[in-house]
Amino acid sequence: MQVKEKNAVSELVNTVGKENILTAKEELIPYMKDASYIEGIMPLALCLPKNTDQVSDIMRICNKYKINVTARSGGTSLTGSSTGSFSGVILSTMNLNRILDMDISSRYIVCEPGVRIDTLNSELRKYNFFYPPDPASSRASTIGGSLSTNAGGLRAVRYGATKEWVLGMEVVLPTGDIIRTGEYTLKRSAGYDLTALMIGSEGTLGIITKAILKIEPLPEATARIIGFYSDIKSVGKSMDTIKSHGITPIMSEFMDLGTINSIRKAMGLEIPDYTKYLLMVDVDSPSEALEKKIGAIQNIMSKFSRDVIVVRDQKRMDEIYAARKGAYSALLEQRENSRQLVVIGDVIVPSSQLADSLEEIEEYVKKDGIKTTLFGHIGDGNIHANMFMDNTEEGRKKMEKLQMDIAKVAIEHNGSVSAEHGIGTEKNLLLYEEYRARNSLYSLEIMKLIKKAFDPNNILNRGKIFYEPD
Amino acid sequence: MQVKEKNAVSELVNTVGKENILTAKEELIPYMKDASYIEGIMPLALCLPKNTDQVSDIMRICNKYKINVTARSGGTSLTGSSTGSFSGVILSTMNLNRILDMDISSRYIVCEPGVRIDTLNSELRKYNFFYPPDPASSRASTIGGSLSTNAGGLRAVRYGATKEWVLGMEVVLPTGDIIRTGEYTLKRSAGYDLTALMIGSEGTLGIITKAILKIEPLPEATARIIGFYSDIKSVGKSMDTIKSHGITPIMSEFMDLGTINSIRKAMGLEIPDYTKYLLMVDVDSPSEALEKKIGAIQNIMSKFSRDVIVVRDQKRMDEIYAARKGAYSALLEQRENSRQLVVIGDVIVPSSQLADSLEEIEEYVKKDGIKTTLFGHIGDGNIHANMFMDNTEEGRKKMEKLQMDIAKVAIEHNGSVSAEHGIGTEKNLLLYEEYRARNSLYSLEIMKLIKKAFDPNNILNRGKIFYEPD
Repeated sequence: MQVKEKNAVSELVNTVGKENILTAKEELIPYMKDASYIEGIMPLALCLPKNTDQVSDIMRICNKYKINVTARSGGTSLTGSSTGSFSGVILSTMNLNRILDMDISSRYIVCEPGVRIDTLNSELRKYNFFYPPDPASSRASTIGGSLSTNAGGLRAVRYGATKEWVLGMEVVLPTGDIIRTGEYTLKRSAGYDLTALMIGSEGTLGIITKAILKIEPLPEATARIIGFYSDIKSVGKSMDTIKSHGITPIMSEFMDLGTINSIRKAMGLEIPDYTKYLLMVDVDSPSEALEKKIGAIQNIMSKFSRDVIVVRDQKRMDEIYAARKGAYSALLEQRENSRQLVVIGDVIVPSSQLADSLEEIEEYVKKDGIKTTLFGHIGDGNIHANMFMDNTEEGRKKMEKLQMDIAKVAIEHNGSVSAEHGIGTEKNLLLYEEYRARNSLYSLEIMKLIKKAFDPNNILNRGKIFYEPD
Repeated sequence: MQVKEKNAVSELVNTVGKENILTAKEELIPYMKDASYIEGIMPLALCLPKNTDQVSDIMRICNKYKINVTARSGGTSLTGSSTGSFSGVILSTMNLNRILDMDISSRYIVCEPGVRIDTLNSELRKYNFFYPPDPASSRASTIGGSLSTNAGGLRAVRYGATKEWVLGMEVVLPTGDIIRTGEYTLKRSAGYDLTALMIGSEGTLGIITKAILKIEPLPEATARIIGFYSDIKSVGKSMDTIKSHGITPIMSEFMDLGTINSIRKAMGLEIPDYTKYLLMVDVDSPSEALEKKIGAIQNIMSKFSRDVIVVRDQKRMDEIYAARKGAYSALLEQRENSRQLVVIGDVIVPSSQLADSLEEIEEYVKKDGIKTTLFGHIGDGNIHANMFMDNTEEGRKKMEKLQMDIAKVAIEHNGSVSAEHGIGTEKNLLLYEEYRARNSLYSLEIMKLIKKAFDPNNILNRGKIFYEPD
């Protein structure tokens, strides 16, 4: 440790308390990893503040000593957002985990960033309400992390991404200043939307210490329609047709055979032998009109798939949903050896571009010769390509080539290189490529100027989003 | 005109063409006014660019000469956003008025900023789709202006404000640089959300030259429930109860007797004599469940109101809707003399705070002694107090006091001083008060730093949002 680092850590311990600042190596090692394949560096200390003032103290001290701070909550990042890229401390928000207020008629709930998404929804279910953004990691992932990556998840086809569900925040800036953004109201037109600017900023602009979230009544009745396919283009066409007909499912997930096999047992479905792809679509409705809605989707899917089944039993629906949410974990189990890594891609295209994009992506997968399985929140155009990468220089290069090939497919079809996982340290070059292809690199310059306005010493989540050589 | 102003105008004429740069006084006078009571100053020239490159030329030239530019489209601002506060040119986007692309399955439409909202919706209706944000001025107001103020309107209770309906943009920055923000996709997590930052920035950060807007299928069946009330608190309680029961109307409008009288003929409703307030609530549903939904709202409203009627005929519903949208114009007709002005307030509170807030606002109206009528998009908590102001120094002072009194009611009830009209030059002090009360004045400092990042010479819509003495 450099002298300034030692001094910073000791001032942190003295100011915030040694019970909230951990420095023993064995306590720090777990924080070199998140849920991605990327390894971060050993932190100088782990800060576990219990309230906003402590967060402010930590930021003020680190800003004074110009010590890097990486924000972290559930640690479920898939792009290396929650591990340090440069020497510094980790600020975990996991001890800021209270639900503070709820107002059903005004449709909001207020909570701290360390609250897990499933915990929030358990509370809301008592009132027949829910918080719609539902990333597959919702058991472990938190409000803080999901806001910071503008998380999407299984329900975004209907309810949109996280950005549509946040009314306001309390934020501690890198300088230690505490600000409020937004209000408790459903609309507001009062100056720049700092709330929206924070969402998806991956902890580079400030630490979210409170969030005012919009909530929604639970749907009255739901059912699931599942179709089995032998070609990928028909999956894309099904989705395109459903949406062209003005139907907006509350969930629509697609998976290929590799993914199906990894969660076959957990799903407990009888899957026809010819199946290479599966599409499952949830509809909701007042109970009187549920059968009509099921019928409309069944009709469309029957045209493109070989068999269609309907699941109406809530318990079965829950089991299948849980199995789908476990797909990434299940794929991790399928590695050939413990040195193999699974890299989860995250591109998105408009619905009308799905059929062609899926086909082109499969072609690249074949050509680049990396074992890859596909699944995705296809209703909003989001495709996850899960690449089994050998942890060697050559393996990494091959994976990076495939990832760039797939990214270019998305860009060419008016899509984006990151739908819901953020950029982290993994996708800086893909982000650059997207803006380059759009002839809009100045967008990145404007973002850097904004970063500087919030964080003049560039101490917060350094190395994330923007490409920055060591 | 100063020498630099003359030089700037002549370079504009030479570069962009004299057919696109108007300089005759009689052509410029109308641009000293928008739909608000505020008078702007005489512009040096009116720029009417026909394409993005011309917008870029205009910005580059004005930036070079440090000439102020005020962006304007439909001119329906209610806060003085679209008139100049400082000497400079007006950049009108009304010649950028094409619909460029539409993709029903991907749920987007691409258009230029001068397209009027009703024009967009006429086009979309052919496909059974619509663009939900619906400010009362939608016949005249444009996409450019409504994005710049994060417009709300009559359907925000269900569909949210404009910010939830914009996927991406093309923007010309004050320096003349052209950037792309966002993509054509329903989700994205790729760097800071510059699209969201532009929305509600009232033309202070850049000129929107294209917008990618999200669209929505039209509801299947709708009906309107109208309740007549003799006390204001019961109106607030009705709304609070409807929303507590998990019902989200697609519209819910309230009006007081002054407003009712101004549009009584246009509405064509039989209104009971005791009526002091009226609440109208629209529900949508698949047709099979419409009666159930109507019944649920009827039940709740019957508990708080004296009479409830249901309107099911689409033509009658359209007429009443149009009458409501004309309320501000109708109130302008009710001025005692042509020197009297109508100032339309625009506060918002959470639903649970409506009953108390409405009562407190009425008390201030009585106490401050200014003729005022109330109406509002009450489903999202938005209350418009329309103040009839004598255009004298004393009259203005009285109005400003009432407006601050009402703003403080909103702030105390966890609300905001501006729901959907923006800040313009009218509400700078109210905005300051909101952040002061939240102990968050540093939010305004951050906004100013962002403004500087986009607009280093402070030439774009100077005087808007931020308080800036002459």
